[in-house]
Amino acid sequence: MDIRIPFDELLGALQAAMLRLGFAEDRGRLCARLFAETTRDGVYSHGLNRFPRFMETIRNGLLDVEAQAAKVGGAGAFERWTGNRGAGNLSAYASMGRAIELAKAHGMGCVALRDTNHWMRAGTYGWQAADAGVIGMCWTNTMPNLVPWGGVERGVGNNPIVMAVPRPHSGAHVVLDMAVSQYSFGAIAGFIARGEQLPYDGGYDAAGNITRDPKLIEQSQGGMPIGYWKGSGLSVLLDMTAAILSAGRATHQLSTDVMKESGQSQVFLAFDVNCFGDEGSAERMADDVVEALHAVKGRDGGRPRYPGEQTLKLRAENMRLGVPVVEARWKELLDAAR
Amino acid sequence: MDIRIPFDELLGALQAAMLRLGFAEDRGRLCARLFAETTRDGVYSHGLNRFPRFMETIRNGLLDVEAQAAKVGGAGAFERWTGNRGAGNLSAYASMGRAIELAKAHGMGCVALRDTNHWMRAGTYGWQAADAGVIGMCWTNTMPNLVPWGGVERGVGNNPIVMAVPRPHSGAHVVLDMAVSQYSFGAIAGFIARGEQLPYDGGYDAAGNITRDPKLIEQSQGGMPIGYWKGSGLSVLLDMTAAILSAGRATHQLSTDVMKESGQSQVFLAFDVNCFGDEGSAERMADDVVEALHAVKGRDGGRPRYPGEQTLKLRAENMRLGVPVVEARWKELLDAAR
Repeated sequence: MDIRIPFDELLGALQAAMLRLGFAEDRGRLCARLFAETTRDGVYSHGLNRFPRFMETIRNGLLDVEAQAAKVGGAGAFERWTGNRGAGNLSAYASMGRAIELAKAHGMGCVALRDTNHWMRAGTYGWQAADAGVIGMCWTNTMPNLVPWGGVERGVGNNPIVMAVPRPHSGAHVVLDMAVSQYSFGAIAGFIARGEQLPYDGGYDAAGNITRDPKLIEQSQGGMPIGYWKGSGLSVLLDMTAAILSAGRATHQLSTDVMKESGQSQVFLAFDVNCFGDEGSAERMADDVVEALHAVKGRDGGRPRYPGEQTLKLRAENMRLGVPVVEARWKELLDAAR
Repeated sequence: MDIRIPFDELLGALQAAMLRLGFAEDRGRLCARLFAETTRDGVYSHGLNRFPRFMETIRNGLLDVEAQAAKVGGAGAFERWTGNRGAGNLSAYASMGRAIELAKAHGMGCVALRDTNHWMRAGTYGWQAADAGVIGMCWTNTMPNLVPWGGVERGVGNNPIVMAVPRPHSGAHVVLDMAVSQYSFGAIAGFIARGEQLPYDGGYDAAGNITRDPKLIEQSQGGMPIGYWKGSGLSVLLDMTAAILSAGRATHQLSTDVMKESGQSQVFLAFDVNCFGDEGSAERMADDVVEALHAVKGRDGGRPRYPGEQTLKLRAENMRLGVPVVEARWKELLDAAR
């Protein structure tokens, strides 16, 4: 059962839990904030609901709370970092932060990060870039959890990709946070729980046939890339570029056991939209594109939404009413914080 | 009817036609080569078959054969260029060329190009980057030709995106060339001509319902992004970032008349994979990812292919047997070359 907890109370409990897990003060505060904001923004799968698994990866030695991201090489606007198998969200946050600094110095910047851990909510680093007034883009590889086009078993990752455009005056940044899979396994589990079929093709059965039956997909663990052959190719390139740019690991080198998945490769890009001196024109263009999208004739009296639009609504609602959390998870958190 | 023409003969005829169209010698040679190589590589829709429309845009004044791409601003690794409404393939080639130079100097480079024209085959600039030994990435916006998620009429572009990874020793570069649409209108016309339904959801009918009937999609001109809501969001971000980074035009500002579509915005990125000194490791990783993909159990005795794999096969075949061209197009080219 969901209950609503004030944001500050959730944040405080997470902070206390992080210190108990062994994080240093400032790193624990940041890690707690990223988990709390993810929950506040409605990405429940990667917020508090993910915290038990996060704790388990610390206990099983996959994630070293003391390990910090560090630079291993640099060439002007492009740096290579290692996550040293520390907290994935902290290393990703540090990497996007460094890409933003590089962008301010060089117009644009890139940090390729290797040997990290799951970065939790992908969109976090898009919001981070947009809040800093830059265009951000990042992607990660994952373990093989999707069936490549032409195959009948898993072989490519769902490799989430993020693109973010700042709108500093309104704060209504445009943030795309998109795994390459048509449906996440969490979403598929939801359809099973509700006894529903998927509305669109969403994965493969054990024989390698495309299906809308969520049970068959869960059994085979064969997710499907968006756009059939297209997302399959995109997944290959996101993986290959992340592994090469970071000199890290590729999807096929990552464990398919979710409790052992570690050592991902990631790419963080930032572009200083004001480096040519025309401050303000970027935001006007972003506003114009949003306005044009909203003007498209919508289905059932609605209108098309821009990526991130729903996040802002949920964020406001959850700040007003309290952040919805699963009661059992909240009790576990309070235990972990004590 | 298709006939086969030796590559050099096709190239020579295209070169002669370019000079007759008013291109300067070196620019005409390059423009001809890009058209010839596109045809040779099997992307027939954007090779010789596209040449009549290319000529028409010169005649109707949309494309200025004398206009050249020029830098309008620069900030370290990130430059802004204008295409000055010249030949789109030449301006895109110049922009990727400059991004490659910037990557050699700064580790990575970005050129954002505005006021250009259709770049013809997107993949051209991926092969260009890979041939230069760098990782390349680029995208363009287009006129609104797809229905955004939540809408019932066209409002976003199919915004092709390219990612390319070099494999200098084998020459078997990995090149993804992907429009955000599930099917191109050319592909949809092919299904209609063969009297076939689409195998997967491919667009919207005039009432805004998703359909696999190619006739209904052609009537409504409502193409569909890959992955339903996902590709729709990706399209918005590709458009917005291209327009902002180049200070150019966005999709909603481009004409929906294909004979008047002009002024696109594009982004070109290049990453020097050897800037950290570990020459060779990038190609080994690319080889490993390809090998892992090929090892995935395939459908019907086949195996999954990497993006670009089919291109190399077609290229070899067409160099050996001659490049297949539609006889009527070939005669038109010979007329234009005289």
